[in-house]
Amino acid sequence: MSISPNKYRTHSCGALRLDDNGADVALAGWVDSVRSHGEGLVFLDLRDRDGITQIVFDAEDSGKEIVERADKLRGEDVIGVTGYVRKRDGGSNPKLDTGEIEVVIRTLDVLNVAQDIPFKPTDKESLPNEENRLRYRYVDLRRPRMQEILRTRARVCQIMRRYLSEVGFTEVETPVLFKTTPEGARDFLVPSRHQPGSFYALPQSPQILKQILMVSGMERYFQIVKCFRDEDLRADRQPEFTQLDIEMSFIEQKDVLETITGLFKEIWKEILNVDIGDVPHMSYHEAMDRFGSDRPDTRFGLELVDVSDIAGSTDFKVFTGAIEKGGVVKAMRVPGGAGKLTRKMTDAYAEFVKQFGAGGLPVTKLEGGEFVSGVAKFIQDVRPALVDKLGLEEGDLIAFGADTYNVVSRSLGELRLKIARDMDMIPAWGEKWNFLWVVDFPMVEWDDEQNRWNSLHHPFTAPKPEDVSKMESDTANVRSDAYDFVLNGSELGGGSIRIHDANIQKTVFKLLGLSDEEAETKFGFLMGAFRHGAPPHGGIAMGVDRVIMHLCDTDNIRDVIAFPKTAIGSDLMADAPSPVDAEQLAEVYVASTAPAED
Amino acid sequence: MSISPNKYRTHSCGALRLDDNGADVALAGWVDSVRSHGEGLVFLDLRDRDGITQIVFDAEDSGKEIVERADKLRGEDVIGVTGYVRKRDGGSNPKLDTGEIEVVIRTLDVLNVAQDIPFKPTDKESLPNEENRLRYRYVDLRRPRMQEILRTRARVCQIMRRYLSEVGFTEVETPVLFKTTPEGARDFLVPSRHQPGSFYALPQSPQILKQILMVSGMERYFQIVKCFRDEDLRADRQPEFTQLDIEMSFIEQKDVLETITGLFKEIWKEILNVDIGDVPHMSYHEAMDRFGSDRPDTRFGLELVDVSDIAGSTDFKVFTGAIEKGGVVKAMRVPGGAGKLTRKMTDAYAEFVKQFGAGGLPVTKLEGGEFVSGVAKFIQDVRPALVDKLGLEEGDLIAFGADTYNVVSRSLGELRLKIARDMDMIPAWGEKWNFLWVVDFPMVEWDDEQNRWNSLHHPFTAPKPEDVSKMESDTANVRSDAYDFVLNGSELGGGSIRIHDANIQKTVFKLLGLSDEEAETKFGFLMGAFRHGAPPHGGIAMGVDRVIMHLCDTDNIRDVIAFPKTAIGSDLMADAPSPVDAEQLAEVYVASTAPAED
Repeated sequence: MSISPNKYRTHSCGALRLDDNGADVALAGWVDSVRSHGEGLVFLDLRDRDGITQIVFDAEDSGKEIVERADKLRGEDVIGVTGYVRKRDGGSNPKLDTGEIEVVIRTLDVLNVAQDIPFKPTDKESLPNEENRLRYRYVDLRRPRMQEILRTRARVCQIMRRYLSEVGFTEVETPVLFKTTPEGARDFLVPSRHQPGSFYALPQSPQILKQILMVSGMERYFQIVKCFRDEDLRADRQPEFTQLDIEMSFIEQKDVLETITGLFKEIWKEILNVDIGDVPHMSYHEAMDRFGSDRPDTRFGLELVDVSDIAGSTDFKVFTGAIEKGGVVKAMRVPGGAGKLTRKMTDAYAEFVKQFGAGGLPVTKLEGGEFVSGVAKFIQDVRPALVDKLGLEEGDLIAFGADTYNVVSRSLGELRLKIARDMDMIPAWGEKWNFLWVVDFPMVEWDDEQNRWNSLHHPFTAPKPEDVSKMESDTANVRSDAYDFVLNGSELGGGSIRIHDANIQKTVFKLLGLSDEEAETKFGFLMGAFRHGAPPHGGIAMGVDRVIMHLCDTDNIRDVIAFPKTAIGSDLMADAPSPVDAEQLAEVYVASTAPAED
Repeated sequence: MSISPNKYRTHSCGALRLDDNGADVALAGWVDSVRSHGEGLVFLDLRDRDGITQIVFDAEDSGKEIVERADKLRGEDVIGVTGYVRKRDGGSNPKLDTGEIEVVIRTLDVLNVAQDIPFKPTDKESLPNEENRLRYRYVDLRRPRMQEILRTRARVCQIMRRYLSEVGFTEVETPVLFKTTPEGARDFLVPSRHQPGSFYALPQSPQILKQILMVSGMERYFQIVKCFRDEDLRADRQPEFTQLDIEMSFIEQKDVLETITGLFKEIWKEILNVDIGDVPHMSYHEAMDRFGSDRPDTRFGLELVDVSDIAGSTDFKVFTGAIEKGGVVKAMRVPGGAGKLTRKMTDAYAEFVKQFGAGGLPVTKLEGGEFVSGVAKFIQDVRPALVDKLGLEEGDLIAFGADTYNVVSRSLGELRLKIARDMDMIPAWGEKWNFLWVVDFPMVEWDDEQNRWNSLHHPFTAPKPEDVSKMESDTANVRSDAYDFVLNGSELGGGSIRIHDANIQKTVFKLLGLSDEEAETKFGFLMGAFRHGAPPHGGIAMGVDRVIMHLCDTDNIRDVIAFPKTAIGSDLMADAPSPVDAEQLAEVYVASTAPAED
């Protein structure tokens, strides 16, 4: 860190080396630890964001009075010192960059005394409970790991901005006080004081505004922007999150994919020194067929294989029944699963898949060249065919799904992830970076409950040009120019090419059961903008928080946000949200209808 | 602009040159203008964000059918074309970068027809009224000037981020859904659905959070961040605005000033190729004495001069009365004002200064070596002394203020600006960049109405170390380590070194009449954080919108914001804010109390 010398310090606590031997220096920072050796000798680790320097108080150099004051210092006190650098007496400390020197202190200025420190921020052994970490966030953020994460986050955002600016994108700020947008989640509302009875909504995303910017001729827009969704309680969600938002004009799908791929190559190279190479594309159907998921984790096997043809030739009612109803039978080979997965575990898996609609989980094992246990007797006859199709080997466990395509995919897809975790098949952080573009999503999916088609993405997503002709005749098989960017089984972002042709838009609205009037009401000013000369355009939105989680090896979204909120949206440090005077509410023309507290 | 060729275009509309003669190209963009020459010949200016290219449809090359379709095109239609480049027949157009060539069209794809265009975005002659510009913002933003402003804004933010990152700052995102902060303006409130009866507040600035980040050990924080103030109607304010927010630890005032000065040198150099040189410092008192303002416009003279000693020796009651009451008499010399400022104008000035508390405006003129008109007869005797002190010359007008120091400063300070505008003394944009640090603000000012001291900045602003001893004995003269950054008379930002010493903080709270309990209630969690080891720290906040206004030569804040709001906070394009269903309100436990509309 570059610091310009001032009255507090000449160097940071990470800067001094043997070359500085003899130099007069000033340092400032937090007391990391104090070791009193008695006999007028105190060693102290002084910490700032740059590192730790050992400083020494002794009666001879520092004077008795200073040693006595040093002896009273406690962890997290803030001090400023002056002294001189000397080579360490008792050998160097290789764990510290400054480990070859120490600073002998001549003056001590106690800048602030710390009281009631709830936990030691540099204790590597034990992490405080999360409630304490959030309540005393200012202590928690002193932990070197948290500092490192926040710095990485800033660097990644800088890379995003630099890269995109270099390839012709302009960052444009869009409003926070805006209007309900049709994203599906609940809006946060803000009452207006100047317009009684009216409310702003915080944007769930700048989706409509970035499309407006394309109509405005910006051509290449991006923004790193806060988005707001008032969702139901989920531990891994935050009511406000950060998105890298992108939109481009006069482009095709490939242009968006190339832009994002190039950007992520740059990020991974610069942050982790990793070459991620080319990013493969996989169609939605292939992803569902092979992995039972539209965001497949391709770092390990356990792929799903359709064995309907073989299963159909058995007498096993579970299999034949499913096929007769138009469903499928799929199998997953678990190498070595025969030995490693106990009966108790496979019973638990059978329960597990039920939450995804499966009736149960037929399993068997290949041991001594035979199917053994589970559904062995029903399928022994087709063993050779299954061995051949699945590439089975001695000691494998085989799990089956027999139901509709969707139920089988979902349940075996989830089971696949669970087994991989249980059998330790998921590579450690940093070993594999399996980036993947999932493309060719269906444009719509059938909603059984509401008995109508729903957009898989949003109603402005363009059908693939070659599929436009079958929009009405073969709706289910119309693919869209939508795409998701997936890393190690987690969705980093997604987007689509938007419809710019009014006739195609009309057809899509009709398919979705939206009348022209409803479309106008719901998407009003965007529809208006489209009538004033809209270019072909498309874009993508990436979850910044999630990207940082991957880069910093954490599953906890609260680790990558300086001041995160709890699952119920509380800021424990600031005690927000909090009650407000009735008068303050009256000024914005609302009243609380919350039930009185007991 | 770098574009990668796709089905829509091989080049942008600003790219082609004579070197490309004969090349096959594809272009796309908006129809800027169409000129039908009859006889199967149509010229069209095609526009994208990069420029304009003339394209030609003729029966021979394009075919009759295409020429007929081209003839029907209207301004702002979106088209894609292919054709070949040729040297212009009738000589080049030096106004266009592409002026030496034209593109002869072989295929035409009408991508979108524009309807009901409210105004032509490239009409340089007349600007539409602002309501229309805001309502049809997507058309207004197509204007090259608006595109240029938004691009400049993005570049400036990039420079800020790059520069600050290079000198060790980390950008940290702070929450938007937060808590009331004691900034003085009204908060925007957001009701919580998960915590009935509780509300978030949108931050008026991240002031407290950036101080918390210093307690967290971040040392050098910045953020380009949206701030929210629910202020009363003023045309030049926006309810949400953008701030460059900075905070540093273990620093003195000079460190903040050097950082910002260095940053603005970089911005002005990179955007305007202007060297702003060193930025002078001026004390608050000097600024008030000489310019009657704490953000003096130093680009022209009209300085205020204290003539109390001379005025006190006259018999003019207005002067002697003011001095007897402890006030002052100040004079402002207006070179050439005798001829240029009519009686009608000086009468209007006398009315003008009344709004700032002045009783009137004594004026006179120096003509034929004598004071003439106005208050001439009262001060003729002291003419030589005034001529000497003010450096008066033949033809000057002299205006006086006689009242308390504050009233005289304020009224003559404002009059100074008005006369400078009226007499065309303010240099044109780009001629002078008078940056200035105003320093040594008083820590507190006396509030006559409330009969107590108020912070000039905020209650955490540190007194100058050398003034600490007189905090209780000579409160009015205690200066603080606060500073404002001023450009050409407009405040770009301000900040201060904060108090980190608990005893000094106690004294300040006492001076301000804040009990420990009140301080705790008002600044609760920050006070708590301060007890956990706070380093010395300070910072600054700069108004990004205002910086861009200076760089882009506009007085209209709405010109530098993509989607601005009107004075009553309306987004005319999106029709926000807007009414909300009672059910949606009930979900967040509020009800509207707005009077029913007629």
